Amino acid sequence: MKIFEEIESEVQSYARSFPRIFNKAQGEFLYDIEGNRYLDFLAGAGTLNYGHNNPYFKEKLLEYIYSDGITHGLDLHTAAKQKFLEVLNEKILKPRDLEYIVQFTGPTGTNAVEAAIKIARNVKGRENIVSFTNGFHGVTLGSLSATGNSHHRGAAGVSLSGSSRMPYDGYLGDDIDTTAYLDKVLSDSSSGVDLPAAVIVETVQGEGGINVASRDWLLNLAEVCKRHDVLLIIDDIQAGCGRTGTFFSFEDAGIYPDIVTLSKSLGGYGLPFAVVLMKPVLDQWKPGEHNGTFRGNNFAFVTATEAINYYWSDKKFSDEVGRKGKYIEQRLNRIVDLYGEGNFTTRGRGMFHGINCVSGELAGKITKVAFAKGLIIETSGADDHVIKILCPLIIKDENLKLGLDIIEESVKEICAKEDSIPEEQDFFSPQVAAK
Amino acid sequence: MKIFEEIESEVQSYARSFPRIFNKAQGEFLYDIEGNRYLDFLAGAGTLNYGHNNPYFKEKLLEYIYSDGITHGLDLHTAAKQKFLEVLNEKILKPRDLEYIVQFTGPTGTNAVEAAIKIARNVKGRENIVSFTNGFHGVTLGSLSATGNSHHRGAAGVSLSGSSRMPYDGYLGDDIDTTAYLDKVLSDSSSGVDLPAAVIVETVQGEGGINVASRDWLLNLAEVCKRHDVLLIIDDIQAGCGRTGTFFSFEDAGIYPDIVTLSKSLGGYGLPFAVVLMKPVLDQWKPGEHNGTFRGNNFAFVTATEAINYYWSDKKFSDEVGRKGKYIEQRLNRIVDLYGEGNFTTRGRGMFHGINCVSGELAGKITKVAFAKGLIIETSGADDHVIKILCPLIIKDENLKLGLDIIEESVKEICAKEDSIPEEQDFFSPQVAAK
Amino acid sequence: MKIFEEIESEVQSYARSFPRIFNKAQGEFLYDIEGNRYLDFLAGAGTLNYGHNNPYFKEKLLEYIYSDGITHGLDLHTAAKQKFLEVLNEKILKPRDLEYIVQFTGPTGTNAVEAAIKIARNVKGRENIVSFTNGFHGVTLGSLSATGNSHHRGAAGVSLSGSSRMPYDGYLGDDIDTTAYLDKVLSDSSSGVDLPAAVIVETVQGEGGINVASRDWLLNLAEVCKRHDVLLIIDDIQAGCGRTGTFFSFEDAGIYPDIVTLSKSLGGYGLPFAVVLMKPVLDQWKPGEHNGTFRGNNFAFVTATEAINYYWSDKKFSDEVGRKGKYIEQRLNRIVDLYGEGNFTTRGRGMFHGINCVSGELAGKITKVAFAKGLIIETSGADDHVIKILCPLIIKDENLKLGLDIIEESVKEICAKEDSIPEEQDFFSPQVAAK
Amino acid sequence: MKIFEEIESEVQSYARSFPRIFNKAQGEFLYDIEGNRYLDFLAGAGTLNYGHNNPYFKEKLLEYIYSDGITHGLDLHTAAKQKFLEVLNEKILKPRDLEYIVQFTGPTGTNAVEAAIKIARNVKGRENIVSFTNGFHGVTLGSLSATGNSHHRGAAGVSLSGSSRMPYDGYLGDDIDTTAYLDKVLSDSSSGVDLPAAVIVETVQGEGGINVASRDWLLNLAEVCKRHDVLLIIDDIQAGCGRTGTFFSFEDAGIYPDIVTLSKSLGGYGLPFAVVLMKPVLDQWKPGEHNGTFRGNNFAFVTATEAINYYWSDKKFSDEVGRKGKYIEQRLNRIVDLYGEGNFTTRGRGMFHGINCVSGELAGKITKVAFAKGLIIETSGADDHVIKILCPLIIKDENLKLGLDIIEESVKEICAKEDSIPEEQDFFSPQVAAK
Repeated sequence: MKIFEEIESEVQSYARSFPRIFNKAQGEFLYDIEGNRYLDFLAGAGTLNYGHNNPYFKEKLLEYIYSDGITHGLDLHTAAKQKFLEVLNEKILKPRDLEYIVQFTGPTGTNAVEAAIKIARNVKGRENIVSFTNGFHGVTLGSLSATGNSHHRGAAGVSLSGSSRMPYDGYLGDDIDTTAYLDKVLSDSSSGVDLPAAVIVETVQGEGGINVASRDWLLNLAEVCKRHDVLLIIDDIQAGCGRTGTFFSFEDAGIYPDIVTLSKSLGGYGLPFAVVLMKPVLDQWKPGEHNGTFRGNNFAFVTATEAINYYWSDKKFSDEVGRKGKYIEQRLNRIVDLYGEGNFTTRGRGMFHGINCVSGELAGKITKVAFAKGLIIETSGADDHVIKILCPLIIKDENLKLGLDIIEESVKEICAKEDSIPEEQDFFSPQVAAK
Repeated sequence: MKIFEEIESEVQSYARSFPRIFNKAQGEFLYDIEGNRYLDFLAGAGTLNYGHNNPYFKEKLLEYIYSDGITHGLDLHTAAKQKFLEVLNEKILKPRDLEYIVQFTGPTGTNAVEAAIKIARNVKGRENIVSFTNGFHGVTLGSLSATGNSHHRGAAGVSLSGSSRMPYDGYLGDDIDTTAYLDKVLSDSSSGVDLPAAVIVETVQGEGGINVASRDWLLNLAEVCKRHDVLLIIDDIQAGCGRTGTFFSFEDAGIYPDIVTLSKSLGGYGLPFAVVLMKPVLDQWKPGEHNGTFRGNNFAFVTATEAINYYWSDKKFSDEVGRKGKYIEQRLNRIVDLYGEGNFTTRGRGMFHGINCVSGELAGKITKVAFAKGLIIETSGADDHVIKILCPLIIKDENLKLGLDIIEESVKEICAKEDSIPEEQDFFSPQVAAK
Repeated sequence: MKIFEEIESEVQSYARSFPRIFNKAQGEFLYDIEGNRYLDFLAGAGTLNYGHNNPYFKEKLLEYIYSDGITHGLDLHTAAKQKFLEVLNEKILKPRDLEYIVQFTGPTGTNAVEAAIKIARNVKGRENIVSFTNGFHGVTLGSLSATGNSHHRGAAGVSLSGSSRMPYDGYLGDDIDTTAYLDKVLSDSSSGVDLPAAVIVETVQGEGGINVASRDWLLNLAEVCKRHDVLLIIDDIQAGCGRTGTFFSFEDAGIYPDIVTLSKSLGGYGLPFAVVLMKPVLDQWKPGEHNGTFRGNNFAFVTATEAINYYWSDKKFSDEVGRKGKYIEQRLNRIVDLYGEGNFTTRGRGMFHGINCVSGELAGKITKVAFAKGLIIETSGADDHVIKILCPLIIKDENLKLGLDIIEESVKEICAKEDSIPEEQDFFSPQVAAK
Repeated sequence: MKIFEEIESEVQSYARSFPRIFNKAQGEFLYDIEGNRYLDFLAGAGTLNYGHNNPYFKEKLLEYIYSDGITHGLDLHTAAKQKFLEVLNEKILKPRDLEYIVQFTGPTGTNAVEAAIKIARNVKGRENIVSFTNGFHGVTLGSLSATGNSHHRGAAGVSLSGSSRMPYDGYLGDDIDTTAYLDKVLSDSSSGVDLPAAVIVETVQGEGGINVASRDWLLNLAEVCKRHDVLLIIDDIQAGCGRTGTFFSFEDAGIYPDIVTLSKSLGGYGLPFAVVLMKPVLDQWKPGEHNGTFRGNNFAFVTATEAINYYWSDKKFSDEVGRKGKYIEQRLNRIVDLYGEGNFTTRGRGMFHGINCVSGELAGKITKVAFAKGLIIETSGADDHVIKILCPLIIKDENLKLGLDIIEESVKEICAKEDSIPEEQDFFSPQVAAK
């Protein structure tokens, strides 16, 4: 560990929760240099939907490298990019009746978000971007202004402008459709919320605490955007690529967003990769306006192509995610019922689930115990109070059961020690307002 | 080409200059799907200092992938990262007496710049960043505000704040040391230039037109920064990793910058990779304040380790770059003398050179002819008026000669057709001011 | 009119509604150069609470000028300023148990708001200012960012940053206490609403359409501010100086704001004047940090002193405003009941009232007819849909009746011509959300 | 003094230098409540060009008030405004061949600057405003971003964006025409200085330390602006209204600025007043876009009309200013020669002069001694190192002599006590750069 302590920056985060040196990985397992095996319920924060070093993609990647296929080609046309575009079009876009232009940005999610916001602002000639409470879109300056977390925002060192914050689905209580509030401020010329170029939203807020937008809310949001000539950007970086059961997380809602950002699991093998999808009419970029040295990561083209070919040529994979997702949901509900004293809750969609432990301290204790039992699992949410279940989608049933068993044991162990589990504060009950 | 026309965004740039589909690459050569070979004097815009698919690194990379080494590990400690940090410390930092902490950011240059600017702002508690005319630091919003190019700036769709612009070395004519101007505005409490957290500068401005800062200017700049308690950030993304002859481009000047950003050729094999180096006292990050899904690209750790081991264990590689650089300089001077009508000029350091053709139109014609002769070469500068010679550092002598021969022929061919070559405008001569 | 058409800017507004040349004024009446008399229900947009050219103040002002009292003294101590401070302290602050430091800013409301926001930001070391839907605080850049009206915001020519918008009392329907939403975003570290330095609010939004905050809402707001260590700024520029019945508009709510801005009627005679009142602990200004050539308008010191002495030495004036306010309310309710088809509504507090005509077109027609009948009266609100009753507080009963009679006749006349009066849209009913 | 100490804010500035309570004023004299007389060489920081309580204007003002002329009329057409516009047009604009539209803004200089910047941004559709080192334009947020002084800038509490800083005439030494630098950055599409909507400049920087732009520099600046389609705003708030000898300070340079801001002495009597003059084509305001309660200060219309009538109907007043200005210059040069040890310098134009004492401490001691001798005089400049001679233009010769005598004695007295007078630092000499 010496060299990490000596010269790696204090900015490290996951390395603090899981203080081992890892050297190998396969499927749903990570291995450390002492040969210990860990079940991975973090999965690269959603990057490893197809598992570590997926053997189908690995073979193609080795072949490509072996034969001196282009590694780095700026934005030059390459055979690998050609294949990726073709398979994306044939297997993903066309079957879903989604007509999109593809922009390759620098291969990180935040870069895709920066590009999406830019093109929205330029096409609409407006500066404001509406973003939501608890949203996470990245930490470069443009994305950060749309990100909610004060830990990240505070690090900017400058004021973050250009974004107006709106309450996400459920933020004002279950009875209030917050899109009506958005509709009202956009209808009201004196609301002080400038007409935005776009609304950017995650269908499930991963970092924000596994908050799930309902189908109706998404439909209403799309409708409000359309009514006010505002673009709808779905940031599908974490929720996309099958995590919720369908390739895009918004398919169930039946909406056709103006812009979609993808990254994380898109590359398939865990390689840096990101794209912006936009309706053809929005592709008003001038040559090179948004650029980046690594916007053509050809290794990722190769593995992304395989990922789509292998998993998205029919409905089987999607059905499997649905089946496993239901199992996760049942298990989590049981855990919450047994040990949560009526205060813990579950939340999620597909294989994107969480346990809201109300207290971050409590959630942290649980994941620490789980790690001791061989499970890598993290928390999210404003106070890190939600245990985030984010295993590879390709996980074997027995390992999924194993992981959930470890979670159950860990929750049980920790909750047994607590005097009482804290209750969530309800801001919209009469008592609070009267305080 | 059909799929590119159909669904790839109009934002494409290099693909427009070199409209082929490439599929293989080795050393200084690219190959298209029809089997044509191209000599690469663009080298991934400085990313392929060690050539395409360098065989020494390739072998190690194949081994690593074959053995299921970690591909994606967020910021977890991995054996591959450990080796990289050790070799960076032993072979690069220690021998140069540079004590730096290493931060792994999202694997793109602009992400490293965003992180560098953030930490500077946070440590100093000031917002302003001084940047220079013609500087290029990336296109995400934080970096873009320090970038000079109006083509990129105009795409922001919002006003770019937080940066004060200063004239680069030579911008006010040869007689004016522009660091004296910086010193004056920082000394003058009513100058209107707020005391900055940092100055960010490239020692050679690649995208800005191969503008070279002199040793004295860099020394004076470092001194002015120190005098006013301002951090000095060297953006060594394009000029670093041997391009100017030494690993860091600032070694000759004998300065010890507070922060250094590296990317492009750092990964060795053309894989996405970026780091921020900072003096230990500056590492005041809180855990996870600046994060990113791909901040641990383990493939790049493997190839970056090999690159340092292979090329930077002794002075041989550095000497070779020096030798080839001198040859390039001589050849370019000759070309300019013969065909530039006294108006073309050369500029550069190490193997980072350019021919200033004054007119972008002219430079574009020359590179187009060169491409027809099998040479991939690009322009840079405000008006794309500088032909940028940026071949792999490991290029064989015969191929270096071949490339320069093609440049010479192309210049000759185009200049012969021109009535007259435009003269550069001199803003600081008395006549202009009196106009 | 010729010279106005020739060389006065198109920015004119009131002059368009009332296209006469006025030359004299007394009490509640204006006179044009042709000798026509107009009853003034606009009262300098709240500046003439004590009527035009109030004879008690006029005498003192003439004396002062005649005797060569200081007219312009920058911020020098003058005898006139001394008297003003003493009477303000003795007659206004002390009897209300309000301990405040007085800052004289440039003599316009927006300047006071700029100063209030500055000192809040500096004392708290935070940039964000929470402002409300439909708020109006001025049009210089700092104030404008807190102002809601898109007509004014759009004129900025730059993006307006530094302010987060929250829903005012009633904005989310009668059942939602919007301070609970504010409390929630301030409690939620991932809400994306940065902890503000201050909240700025009007107790009655004049320009926003005569929206009245309830006593409870103000109390809750003060409580939320306190809980989160956020300063509460009451912008009492229009609602203060007796308009709602008490000197400060927040007296009934029983709160003690951290900062209060006053202007408009403060000077008494319609002369430019503005102050910021702040709790002593907040007076952390360094000498001259916020300055302005006219921050000592000594004529206004003289008349402001008289105004306080004459009207605020006992409760009589306040009681009179209450009595007249009730009369206005009754008359307006009757008008709305008779002619508003169940869609018009009234709103207001003290002598600050409005008729919401839902449609701006309709309201405009009514005020136009009223002007033809000799009444000067304006509209406000997002769509200029609210007729604003803002007569001098000192108006004689017979003239108050006369004005309200004219309003009644005008409403009647216009409404009779309309096929139907539009209904207000209810965003929070289920139907709308489902649209 | 008690009440000032008790409840007036610490933001006081002039009141600290001249700790008396003043109650009367006439011409060039101020009187305190103890009957002491002070010769006023501060003149309301340039607001009292026609002296305190000028008897010609006073009579008209008394008449106006006595007869109940409109005091406050928002932006309604009034007879007083009509007369002002007519006399401004006939006596000032037409004789100088200046075609301008007049906008009445809130009656403070900073409000005029905010309006000027807004209209420039809106007409040009660009955000950037070029401002100059040591410029002062006010302290509301929009103006402050163009103001150079860090004392004022630091109080903003937010980052000041939207302005690019350029070196004023002489800032880079006498040999460099800094407009050539401006021309270069505007010609260079990669300079990083975004094409501005406007340049805002003072012809003599009062607060900045009495820095005088040369005629040639102003001509070149106007030319550069024209060449790049950038508007030229002359902020004539302090230098205008006769201070430099002509009504507008730019008349000698023979330029026709696109926009001019006026305030301070424009009202004549020291009453709050400000206007923006703009070329007709720029008057693209929509009704009420920039508003303000006190934008029609009718008292100031009356006195401003008289001021123009009385002093600007022929060339006599202008000649007198020229004559007195020359006298001031001679006297100051003599003082500097006798006591400045070769380090003090003089600077100025018309009756706008200063003595650069290099050290703020020294300048402060001198003005303190002068006050003890009955002279009110202030310093300006980055370090308050320039003694600012700013007496009323109507000063009697004997009193002008008296004031200059006091200055001479004070300088003599203080300099005799100093060991040595500090030398100004020369940033552009070779030694400094080499340090």
